[in-house]
Amino acid sequence: MAEVLYDTLAVIGCGLIGSSVIHAARGAGAVRRVTVSDTSDQVRERVSALGLADLVTSDPAEAVKDADLVLLAAPPLAIEGALAAAASGLKAGATVTDVGSVKGAIVEAFARVLPDGVHGVPGHPIAGTEQSGPDAGFAALFHGRWTILTPAERDDAPYRAAVERLTAFWMALGANVELMDAGHHDLVLAVTSHLPHLIAYNIVGTAADLEEVTQGEVIKYSAGGFRDFTRIAASDPIMWRDVFLANREAVLEILGRFTEDLQALSRAIRWGEGDKLEELFTRTRAIRRGVIDAGQEAPDPNWGRDRGR
Amino acid sequence: MAEVLYDTLAVIGCGLIGSSVIHAARGAGAVRRVTVSDTSDQVRERVSALGLADLVTSDPAEAVKDADLVLLAAPPLAIEGALAAAASGLKAGATVTDVGSVKGAIVEAFARVLPDGVHGVPGHPIAGTEQSGPDAGFAALFHGRWTILTPAERDDAPYRAAVERLTAFWMALGANVELMDAGHHDLVLAVTSHLPHLIAYNIVGTAADLEEVTQGEVIKYSAGGFRDFTRIAASDPIMWRDVFLANREAVLEILGRFTEDLQALSRAIRWGEGDKLEELFTRTRAIRRGVIDAGQEAPDPNWGRDRGR
Repeated sequence: MAEVLYDTLAVIGCGLIGSSVIHAARGAGAVRRVTVSDTSDQVRERVSALGLADLVTSDPAEAVKDADLVLLAAPPLAIEGALAAAASGLKAGATVTDVGSVKGAIVEAFARVLPDGVHGVPGHPIAGTEQSGPDAGFAALFHGRWTILTPAERDDAPYRAAVERLTAFWMALGANVELMDAGHHDLVLAVTSHLPHLIAYNIVGTAADLEEVTQGEVIKYSAGGFRDFTRIAASDPIMWRDVFLANREAVLEILGRFTEDLQALSRAIRWGEGDKLEELFTRTRAIRRGVIDAGQEAPDPNWGRDRGR
Repeated sequence: MAEVLYDTLAVIGCGLIGSSVIHAARGAGAVRRVTVSDTSDQVRERVSALGLADLVTSDPAEAVKDADLVLLAAPPLAIEGALAAAASGLKAGATVTDVGSVKGAIVEAFARVLPDGVHGVPGHPIAGTEQSGPDAGFAALFHGRWTILTPAERDDAPYRAAVERLTAFWMALGANVELMDAGHHDLVLAVTSHLPHLIAYNIVGTAADLEEVTQGEVIKYSAGGFRDFTRIAASDPIMWRDVFLANREAVLEILGRFTEDLQALSRAIRWGEGDKLEELFTRTRAIRRGVIDAGQEAPDPNWGRDRGR
């Protein structure tokens, strides 16, 4: 068993990520006690039924009362409210982190709401599946994946120690950890995650709205590439709504680039410029090689989870 | 063993699809003899080394000499040339088909080049991986997938029999077969395959060109959605160049719809219209359910093939 890093872990918002952190942290022996707070009656019932927590409550302040680590795993735009509701219960010296896909907005929320004497360290595990809810969680979700922490620019020893401990926690869960500036994080993720989701949602929507091709045909012949987009476009709607709203500027910036490139590609097709198409299609192949070499195409627990249903 | 449907199968252009047809047809006992013609020295060497064919040649007319089924599996824009080169060798009563992702252009090429007394039945197995070349082929590629045939509007008995035999051939290889008008095929595939590939190529290109985010970062944090696009964007560059050029009108039509929808989505993000985002993201989830229910998310042999490299 690994070292106990936090005596009590409080998870605020217990969906796919929150429940996976609980499974992984218990499996690694990194925590002794787990409390959960969630606004949904249904989620709390499932958390209790699954035996995920020692205490399940609708009151964030009650959940965080004895917590050494508070993990905010609600949708991005719900985090500030949850934190404000929890603030009065926070223990001095506790570390507060989150798992949201947008970090700039969380840094600002932490600055507004966190009381003194509590260490706010925003975080983001880059892992997930298109499943949602506490039943979807599993311990291996973070294995070999990256977790990015975007700590404040503080150099005092207690804060540094809090960042180090949180780093050790994610490593105990199987993740690699990287520290990054929150603004840069939001730009990188706009490229590697937010735009891909936006594009996938959009293409599935376009396909569903066509008059000349039926939805049945789209589904039947989806093996030609489309079905990969349907998987991404099945991700949690509320979470992704919040991501796009919370990271609006970076998303629109990257989307602008994408649209510009797409217009050029469209023009090359219209004018039959085969050499331009071939040049791009050859160049993109090299990136794939990089993804495979970097081990980012390692077996992923979400593959197979919806197979055969 | 199933019935022998064609004594000799000639495959013109032996990459992923051509070699998979050979593996599957031999495995099913649907053919007795296989000949291969390919313009590439390297491909012919590999075909010989792999023992895929009884005759390997650079001359299409030689390959088709005794063939009862001629399967054109070269890139779309190379098909007419290959067929013209083979025409003098074609046996009376033979069936000529292809596997291209665009059918209108093939119907026209067949009309221009096919001699009388030969049955041209364009076809398209909707199956593939991002791998290319004769080493990438495997027998299970067509299992549970759809093959669309777009026969000519002819009602004579010999032609009808040729279409029926080709249907039986694809079913022997494990595929489901559907007959369709060539123009409709090209529109359906523009949605379910061509646009997804175009979008994937484009987003990977956009990501590679950013100054603020390095290629290393894009690769490292690709698990957030991007890596699925890199797989699609690793597909054969020549083949896809040809697909976009050969199906220009349908691709540009569908791309226009996509871009329009994307502008609306961009506007909703800019103006913080969360309800519009949530409505779309909820609607797209239902399509995913359809893909799974239709069995189009069945275990796919290409998954895992590049894992762990």
